[in-house]
Amino acid sequence: MTHAGTASTVGILGGGQLARMMVLAGLPLGLRFALLDPAPDACAGQAAPLRVAAWDDADALARFADGIDLATFDFENVPAASLDLLAARVPAHPGRDALATAQDRLVEKTRFNALGIPTPGFMAVDDRAGLAAAARSLGLPAILKTRRFGYDGKGQFRLRGEADLDAAWAALGDQAASVGLILEAFVPFRRELSVVAVRARSGEFAAWPITENWHVDGVLSASLAPAEVSPGQEAEAIGHARRLAESLGYVGVFALELFDAGERLLANEMAPRVHNSGHWTIEGARTSQFENHLRAVLGWPLGDTGARGVSCLLNFLGRMPDAGTALAVPGLHLHDYGKAPRAGRKVGHATLCASSPAELADRLEHAGRALDRAAQVAPVLARLRHAP
Amino acid sequence: MTHAGTASTVGILGGGQLARMMVLAGLPLGLRFALLDPAPDACAGQAAPLRVAAWDDADALARFADGIDLATFDFENVPAASLDLLAARVPAHPGRDALATAQDRLVEKTRFNALGIPTPGFMAVDDRAGLAAAARSLGLPAILKTRRFGYDGKGQFRLRGEADLDAAWAALGDQAASVGLILEAFVPFRRELSVVAVRARSGEFAAWPITENWHVDGVLSASLAPAEVSPGQEAEAIGHARRLAESLGYVGVFALELFDAGERLLANEMAPRVHNSGHWTIEGARTSQFENHLRAVLGWPLGDTGARGVSCLLNFLGRMPDAGTALAVPGLHLHDYGKAPRAGRKVGHATLCASSPAELADRLEHAGRALDRAAQVAPVLARLRHAP
Repeated sequence: MTHAGTASTVGILGGGQLARMMVLAGLPLGLRFALLDPAPDACAGQAAPLRVAAWDDADALARFADGIDLATFDFENVPAASLDLLAARVPAHPGRDALATAQDRLVEKTRFNALGIPTPGFMAVDDRAGLAAAARSLGLPAILKTRRFGYDGKGQFRLRGEADLDAAWAALGDQAASVGLILEAFVPFRRELSVVAVRARSGEFAAWPITENWHVDGVLSASLAPAEVSPGQEAEAIGHARRLAESLGYVGVFALELFDAGERLLANEMAPRVHNSGHWTIEGARTSQFENHLRAVLGWPLGDTGARGVSCLLNFLGRMPDAGTALAVPGLHLHDYGKAPRAGRKVGHATLCASSPAELADRLEHAGRALDRAAQVAPVLARLRHAP
Repeated sequence: MTHAGTASTVGILGGGQLARMMVLAGLPLGLRFALLDPAPDACAGQAAPLRVAAWDDADALARFADGIDLATFDFENVPAASLDLLAARVPAHPGRDALATAQDRLVEKTRFNALGIPTPGFMAVDDRAGLAAAARSLGLPAILKTRRFGYDGKGQFRLRGEADLDAAWAALGDQAASVGLILEAFVPFRRELSVVAVRARSGEFAAWPITENWHVDGVLSASLAPAEVSPGQEAEAIGHARRLAESLGYVGVFALELFDAGERLLANEMAPRVHNSGHWTIEGARTSQFENHLRAVLGWPLGDTGARGVSCLLNFLGRMPDAGTALAVPGLHLHDYGKAPRAGRKVGHATLCASSPAELADRLEHAGRALDRAAQVAPVLARLRHAP
């Protein structure tokens, strides 16, 4: 890796696929990058210099800070103290407040409600008796979750009825003291949506078209954008995102996950970073979430978030499909994160682009056949062909 | 830089901006890269591991070959012997025949004519008397050029009349023995066009829409795509490119530069690599020249070369414009090659994208004002607003 000139060097805490795609978007802008991650094989290390260190290695963080002009992160479970250490030396975005809010489901949902952003009902759970009380108060079904360090469906237990209370406590009770627990009411919803949005250092705000998401076992499986939403729903969703960003003084890209519960949108959680449900923006929007995140944290003007046609993201877990087979599917753009295969691991994604929903449906059907992923594409196909 | 898994590693001879953009296109395909370049600050080294070595360092080439699965190049003046050394160990594309043809203007033009691809008249020049004879035979004005190692207008002398013969010989005569000289008739032309095309290992062939180019002092200044051409002209241009590729057994992306002389297209030269006049394909086409070059050399199916709207490339020589100013121009995509500023050096480009020629004209005018480049955008604006 060579360095020259006076370009800004962006330090990223975390070297996973989000950092990798940020690097790929930022090199054309003339930026340099430095990564810090505890994993020596962190996949962004294939595209930028990687410092291997524990999150709480203060010496390594200090040396890391010496080589960068500003800091950001690709992973919201970075300890806030690590970000503090960097923020004492260089500008760091998103800020501590956003990170702390997003790291704790209780703080997060309390903040949503304070901003007039409705959520499913929720209650903190400190002990077994508190779980019973919360279940009585919120009603069942409900979901017991760790307040902190959960992602992709990890640290969650669904309670269908009273009989599940003991099993839920057995599964997560020992984390009540360390990371805290929260019980969330289960609200029947028609579909899952997300708003991926960006706020710049100047306060400039922009959102990409709303995305519809499908999860399998708590992990994103497919996304469709722009989702079919009414102008009222779109305004409501983007209004929530904007209020949230402004209240946090947020700088950078973030995602707000929403349940479409028919009459209203309920906020599930925010991710204070570029987001899996925004990967379609690389080819499907005029400016990608990765480029706009960098523009935002560098104090540059934001790029146009408008869609180019319609797009569908398909996540690849475990292992990548054969590249030659995938690339023969019309309109398919391949993203291999350069990771070793491992069961359940997000190793890459494809974005299928088309000029109309009907063309996208045909291409998606083709992809489902060619890649042996009929089940993965089925719900998106159903939406495209029988839109509400 | 970390490595893992069984991904293919592509070795690139040359580590300039073309290699850099190839790396950026190839990392999402799961590829790894290794670069070899004599310059320790070669800009692609910011995105992939760089081995610094002379082109003719056989030991370095052998070690380089040990770490790669196939080889390509970003620079047509790589010695054919270096490519031979790699080709003895790994597949190398484009092949030796294409490289040797493109490296010698006399061989190249002779081949064009043999394939029925017309060119301006030309004659080899071996000595001062030969120059006089060629000038009499072809007529003046004409251009004396080195047969080998010329690029971006270097190694050329324009003869307006008999009086310039001595000056031309004084400028280039001492290269007659080393790299050879050729006199080319100067043909009045309406405009310069290029075909950027790709041929895969399977023989699959595709071309992007024809591009119109404007040069200043022999260096590309601006490109417009798709160019306004008649269906007949487009078929003629692409037919030439296809015949050339097939006759060379070519694998990879190449460009064929053409003069539009009104009644017919005359071939100027071919570049056996991704080409500056194809940079607009990154945002302006469904698949970029960089991705399709990699698909071709890896034996994968080619991607759709169709245009998305209309695009204009503006080259930046010497130094980059301010990023914040440039990124405020609607539809502008910035490409900073990460090079230190130096007079005349290609340090980056912008591609302006729009959905119609009229919108592109407005954006181009905006860019011309904002970046103080009115003269650079003027000929493109004139074409867009007073199309033939």
